[in-house]
Amino acid sequence: MDKQAFTSPIDLKKVTVTDPFWHREMELVRREVIPYQWDALNDRVPGADPSWCMRNFRIAGRMMADQSRKGAQYVPPSYTFRGFNALPEDITKPEDDKFYGFVFQDTDFSKWIEAVGYSLTQHPDPELEKTADEAIDIVCAAQTPEGYLDTYYIINGMDAALTNLRDHHELYCLGHLIEGAVAYYQATGKDKLLRAACRFADYIADRFGPEEGKCKGYPGHEIAEMALVRLYEVTGEEKYLHLGKFFVDQRGQEPNYFIEEEKTRARREGRAVCHTNTNPAYHQAGKPVREQDEAVGHAVRAVYLYSGMADVARQTGDDSLYAACERLWDNIVRKKLYITGGIGGTHVGEAFSYAYDLPNDTAYSETCAAIGLAFFARRMLQIKPDSKYADVMEQALYNTVLAGMALDGKSFFYVNPLAVVPYAARHDERLRHVEPVRRKWFGCACCPPNLARIVSSIASYAYTEKEDTLYTHLYMGGSIRKDFAGKELTMEVDAKMPWHGHVYVTLHCSEPVNGTLAFRVPGWAPDTVITCGDKQPVYKDGYAYLTGKWHEGDMIRLHLPMAVHVLASNPAVRADVDKVAFTRGPVTFCAEQADNGDNLHLLRVDTRYIGDHGEGVGVEFDHDTFGHETVKLHVPAKRLIMDESAPLYSQWRAPKEETAKIVLVPYYAWANRGEGEMMVWLRRK
Amino acid sequence: MDKQAFTSPIDLKKVTVTDPFWHREMELVRREVIPYQWDALNDRVPGADPSWCMRNFRIAGRMMADQSRKGAQYVPPSYTFRGFNALPEDITKPEDDKFYGFVFQDTDFSKWIEAVGYSLTQHPDPELEKTADEAIDIVCAAQTPEGYLDTYYIINGMDAALTNLRDHHELYCLGHLIEGAVAYYQATGKDKLLRAACRFADYIADRFGPEEGKCKGYPGHEIAEMALVRLYEVTGEEKYLHLGKFFVDQRGQEPNYFIEEEKTRARREGRAVCHTNTNPAYHQAGKPVREQDEAVGHAVRAVYLYSGMADVARQTGDDSLYAACERLWDNIVRKKLYITGGIGGTHVGEAFSYAYDLPNDTAYSETCAAIGLAFFARRMLQIKPDSKYADVMEQALYNTVLAGMALDGKSFFYVNPLAVVPYAARHDERLRHVEPVRRKWFGCACCPPNLARIVSSIASYAYTEKEDTLYTHLYMGGSIRKDFAGKELTMEVDAKMPWHGHVYVTLHCSEPVNGTLAFRVPGWAPDTVITCGDKQPVYKDGYAYLTGKWHEGDMIRLHLPMAVHVLASNPAVRADVDKVAFTRGPVTFCAEQADNGDNLHLLRVDTRYIGDHGEGVGVEFDHDTFGHETVKLHVPAKRLIMDESAPLYSQWRAPKEETAKIVLVPYYAWANRGEGEMMVWLRRK
Repeated sequence: MDKQAFTSPIDLKKVTVTDPFWHREMELVRREVIPYQWDALNDRVPGADPSWCMRNFRIAGRMMADQSRKGAQYVPPSYTFRGFNALPEDITKPEDDKFYGFVFQDTDFSKWIEAVGYSLTQHPDPELEKTADEAIDIVCAAQTPEGYLDTYYIINGMDAALTNLRDHHELYCLGHLIEGAVAYYQATGKDKLLRAACRFADYIADRFGPEEGKCKGYPGHEIAEMALVRLYEVTGEEKYLHLGKFFVDQRGQEPNYFIEEEKTRARREGRAVCHTNTNPAYHQAGKPVREQDEAVGHAVRAVYLYSGMADVARQTGDDSLYAACERLWDNIVRKKLYITGGIGGTHVGEAFSYAYDLPNDTAYSETCAAIGLAFFARRMLQIKPDSKYADVMEQALYNTVLAGMALDGKSFFYVNPLAVVPYAARHDERLRHVEPVRRKWFGCACCPPNLARIVSSIASYAYTEKEDTLYTHLYMGGSIRKDFAGKELTMEVDAKMPWHGHVYVTLHCSEPVNGTLAFRVPGWAPDTVITCGDKQPVYKDGYAYLTGKWHEGDMIRLHLPMAVHVLASNPAVRADVDKVAFTRGPVTFCAEQADNGDNLHLLRVDTRYIGDHGEGVGVEFDHDTFGHETVKLHVPAKRLIMDESAPLYSQWRAPKEETAKIVLVPYYAWANRGEGEMMVWLRRK
Repeated sequence: MDKQAFTSPIDLKKVTVTDPFWHREMELVRREVIPYQWDALNDRVPGADPSWCMRNFRIAGRMMADQSRKGAQYVPPSYTFRGFNALPEDITKPEDDKFYGFVFQDTDFSKWIEAVGYSLTQHPDPELEKTADEAIDIVCAAQTPEGYLDTYYIINGMDAALTNLRDHHELYCLGHLIEGAVAYYQATGKDKLLRAACRFADYIADRFGPEEGKCKGYPGHEIAEMALVRLYEVTGEEKYLHLGKFFVDQRGQEPNYFIEEEKTRARREGRAVCHTNTNPAYHQAGKPVREQDEAVGHAVRAVYLYSGMADVARQTGDDSLYAACERLWDNIVRKKLYITGGIGGTHVGEAFSYAYDLPNDTAYSETCAAIGLAFFARRMLQIKPDSKYADVMEQALYNTVLAGMALDGKSFFYVNPLAVVPYAARHDERLRHVEPVRRKWFGCACCPPNLARIVSSIASYAYTEKEDTLYTHLYMGGSIRKDFAGKELTMEVDAKMPWHGHVYVTLHCSEPVNGTLAFRVPGWAPDTVITCGDKQPVYKDGYAYLTGKWHEGDMIRLHLPMAVHVLASNPAVRADVDKVAFTRGPVTFCAEQADNGDNLHLLRVDTRYIGDHGEGVGVEFDHDTFGHETVKLHVPAKRLIMDESAPLYSQWRAPKEETAKIVLVPYYAWANRGEGEMMVWLRRK
C-alpha cells in the first residue's frame, strides 16, 4: 500500500448536487422515502406490516426508566427465544411489553437517521431535524446504564445478550447505529446519538478483544467492522479501530466461534447441536480473512466485511489484509459480477454462487449487495485511486442500485434478475424470490432504507480527497469546495450524465490555489479527451491528473465518448453463451415487453448490422417514457416466428424469422410501466 | 370410443423375449435387481438404510396372531403420528414392536412380487418362487380379520386408519398390492396373495363409494384406480371396477375431500388447519377429472391417475372421461414432454411445470414418471391403436426409463436431467435433486423397483391383442403365440432394435390361420417398407394391417429407415432456443464429457454440414464402450475457445472457434463411465 495515495471521503456539507439525474433521485428519497420510512418505523403505513421499530425503543425506554426508579431491586425478564421475526397473534393487538419484529429491527431507525443526516446536508429541513431529534431521544432512552443498546435483548432478557452473535445481529445493530449516529453528527453537529453509539461501542469493546477473558466472537452479519473504523475516524478514539480490527482478525479462526457458540447454546438449552445453519462460509467465517480468495456466502455480508477489511487495512497499514481485499475484489469482478453491477448468483442463502454461475432468471442480485459493492469499491478507491474500482462502483450505482427503487420512489426491488417472465415469476416456486413488479415495503426492510442512505450520500462516491488532490470519480452536476493548504477552491461541474459525455468544470477561488485535480477516465470511455488551457493531464491508473496553479474562472472540459457497447460474456458463463448485452456510458440496457411485445426470447440481435463501435444501433434521447431524460437504443434484430400449433419437437430447419427492431431501455428504469417481460442478455446471430 | 378397436394386454407366458437389447435388460433385473431388492426388503444390504418392509409385515403378523389368541380382549395401540419416515434413534437398534420406514413402505414388497411374477414368466426359477411364496405367507399373516392390510396403521393404531388419505398412502398400498398380486397370480396361478388383495379391496369397497354413509375420499397418490380395473379384469368382480370408477369420479369434486379431511384431522388433534400441503392440484384434485385439460402436480401421480382414467373409460365406455384422457395426453405431448420421454419439469413437488417450461439442468424427469407415462400410453393404445401413443411410449422406455438404471443394474437415477455439470450438481443447492452419478438404492425406493417391474414386463408394451388382431407396437426379438378363433399362430420376430431397422417376422402354425397382424410404423420412420408376399398392408393411424390367411413359414419383412434426426424444439421452449438434439430410431443421444472433454456448452453443432436426413452425421456401430452394441454419432461441430484469463465482459466479436467433432452416445447409457458433464440439447449454428 502506498499511504501517500490514501484518500478520504469528502464532507457532504461542502458539496451541492444539482445534477438533473441524481438530484431527481435524491429528491425522491427526501420527499418519498424518508417520510414513508418514518411512518413505517412508527407502524403508520396502512396495509403494510408494522415495523415495530420505534415501539420497541419506547418499550425498552420505559423498562430503563422503571429500572432506574426501582434501582437494584429490578429483575429483568428471563430470555426465551420467540423466533427471528416475532409477531403478535393478532397483528393489530400487540401486547404492551413485548418485542416484535426481526431481531435486527432496531436498524430500521439507524438506517433512517443515516439517510436523514445525509439529506440534511443537501436540503436543510428544520422540521425533519426536529423529528429526528425526538426519535433520537426515544432511542437513547432505551440504552441500558451499562451502554448496551439492542431492544431485542433489553426487552426479551439481557441474560442471553451476546450469546448468539451468529444469528441475532446485535453487532450488526451496533454497526448501523454507529453509521447513523456519525452521519447525523456530521450533518448537524449534534452528538447525542453519537455519544450513545460510543457508549454501546465501549460496552462491546470492554467485552470483546484479543485480551484474555474477553469474548472471541465477531458479527454474524458484518457492518460493525467498517462502522467502527468510521467511528474511530470521527472520534480519534483508537479502541474503536482496535475493536474493528479484532473482529476482522478473529473471523474464521479455529476453533470456529459460531460453531462453538452453537454448542454452548445447545448445551445450555439441553438440545442437540443444530448443524443446519452452521456453514461458516455463509458468514465468510470458513477461514481467516487473510486466507480468503473467493467471495462466498451471503453477498451483502460479504461485501460489508470486505469494506471493513479495506478500512482496517488502510488505517493499520496492513498489507496482507489489503492483499486479501484485492484478491476478493478480483474474484468478484472476474467471476461473480453481473453486467448490471449486481452480485449474488443464487437465492439460496442470498449468496454468491460458484465462479461464472451468473444465471439471469434465477439471479438474486440483491439491491443491498450492489450497495455494499459500491461501499467496497469506494474503500478500495480510498486506498488506491484506480478507475477499475470506480468503473464497478458506477456500474452498481447506475444499474442495480437504482433499479431497486421505482421511478416514483414508492416501491422497491430486493431481487434484481436480468431476465423476467412474469408468468414464471408468479407461478414457478423456483423463482419465488423474483418479483415481476416492485413491492411497496418489506417486513425485512433492508433494501429501501439502504437505497435511501446511499442515494442521499451519492456525492461521497463521486469525490474523495487528500491533502493536495481532489478526485472526481463520478461526473455529477453541482459544486464542491476543497481546501488546499488553507485556500479554498470551488469546483463547479456541469454534466448531464449518464446520457451526455460533455463535462464542463469551472473553478472559483478568491486567490490562486495550488493543487491537483484528478478526473476519472472511465473504462467505457478510454478515449476521453480533457482540455484545460495549456495544462497537460498526466495519466495514471485510469485517472487524469491536472496539477498546477488554479485561478478564478479556469475551465476544464472533458469529453467522454458515449459509444454503444455490445458486450459478450466470457464463454465460461454458461448463461450468456451466444448472447450480447448493451451498455452506453455507465448504463446497462434491457429489453422490455412494453416496447417489444412478449416472448422476448424470440428476438435476436442481428450483429451483422452493428459495427465495432456500436454503429447501426440507434440512440434516441427520450424525455417522455419515464418522466425524465433517458436514452433508448434501437437495435437491428430478427424475431423467430412462433407457431404454437407446431409440435413440441420437429426436424430442425433454418429458423423462420422476421426482421425486427429491439428497443432497449435503461435497466434501472425497468418495471415502471406495468408488469411485463424483461431481458438484459439477448440472443445474437 | 370405438369399442371394436379395444385391445388387451397379452399373456406374458405366451411371449419369449430373446431380443439382445431387452433380454440384456431383463437379465439385469433378474440377476441383479430382484435379488438385491429382496435383500433390501429384508434390511440385509450392507451400508444401505434398512427398508424395514418385511420386518413391518412380521411385526404386524405377530400382532394379528396375538389378537387372534386374545380374542375380543385385545386392545390395539392408539395411533400417534411419528413422521412420514419413522426411523429408530439408533438405526441398528430398532424397537421390537415399532413400525419403521415410510408410510408406504409395504409397497416395497408389492413392487418386488410384481417384478418376480413377470420375471417368472420369462425365466422359471423354483427357488425364487419359493422365496416369493414364503414372503407372501408373511404378508398375508399381517392382514387383519376384516381384510385391512397396511402395516403402518396395523402397527401404529387402526383407530387412525383411513383418516389421512392425502398423505398416508393406504390406497396407494392397496393399488400396488393388487398389481403385485395379479402379476404373481398370472405368472404362477397361485392365488393366495390375490385373495388377500381382494379382501383388502373388499374392505375398502365396503367403506368407500357413492352410497350414503360411505366415505367420499380417494387416493392421495394414485394407482388404485388402474389396479382395481386390472383386478376386475382378472376376477370379473364388478365392484372393483365400480370402486376404481368411484375414485376417478370423486377426485376434485367440491367440497374438496383432502381439505375437508385436513380440517377434520386438525379439529381432532386440536390444532390449526395446515395449508402448506393442501394445494389440491398437486394431487390432481383441483377440479373433477372430466374438466381437467392440463397435466399438473406431482408427475408420477398424474400419469398413474390418467392411466386409471383410461382404464375406467375403456371398461365403462365413458366418452367424456376418454375425452379428458385425450386432452391430458395432448397437453403432455405438446407442451410438457422432454425429448427423452421424461416428464416433470420441476423438482418442486416433483411436478409438471407450466407449458413449455422444460429446463434441461434443473429438470426433475423422474424415472417413475416416465414409467407412468408408458403405462398411460399403453392404455391409450388399448383404446385406440394409434402410433402417436406408441411413439411416446417407446421414447419413454428407450430413454428416460432405461437411463434410470446403470448398465450393470446396480445403481439408479431418480432424476433424469438433460444437462449436467457435476460441479454444479454437487455444489448448487438449486440442483440438490440432481445426482451426477447413479446411487445404489434409496430409502424411498420407488424408481428401482418400478424399473424392475416395467423391464421384466416389457413384452406387454410390445404387443396388445384383440380377438382377430395382434398388434406389434415395439419390435423386439422373440416369439409370441396368439389364438385366432381357436387356432394358434406363433410369430417369431428377428429384430436388432434400437440400432438396426430390419425386422424379419416368421409365422408358425400347424394349420392355416385367419387373422390380422398389425405393425406399427413409428413416427421416426414414416417411410417404413413392409413386404409380405402378395399381401398389401392397409395403413391406418400409424399401423400397417396385414389381413388374410397365414401359413406355416410365411414371412413378413419390415425395413424401418434408421435416419439420424436433428430436432429442434418449438420456439416456445425457452430452454432450447438455438439448440438441436439428435435421435436415431427411438433413441435420444447426448454428449458426454468422456468423449468430448468438459465445458460441453462450448461446443456447437455445425448444421451447415448436416443434411435434412441427417447426412453428414457419422454413425458408428460400437460394441466396446458400453459392453453391448450401441451406436455413436459423430457430429460436425465447432468449439468456442475459452480464455479464462479474459475479462468477464468484453466487446462482442465474432467468437473464436476451432473445428471439432461432437461424439454422441445414447442417453440411456450416460453416466456409466464415471462422473462427467452431459448434455442433450446442443448449441447450433
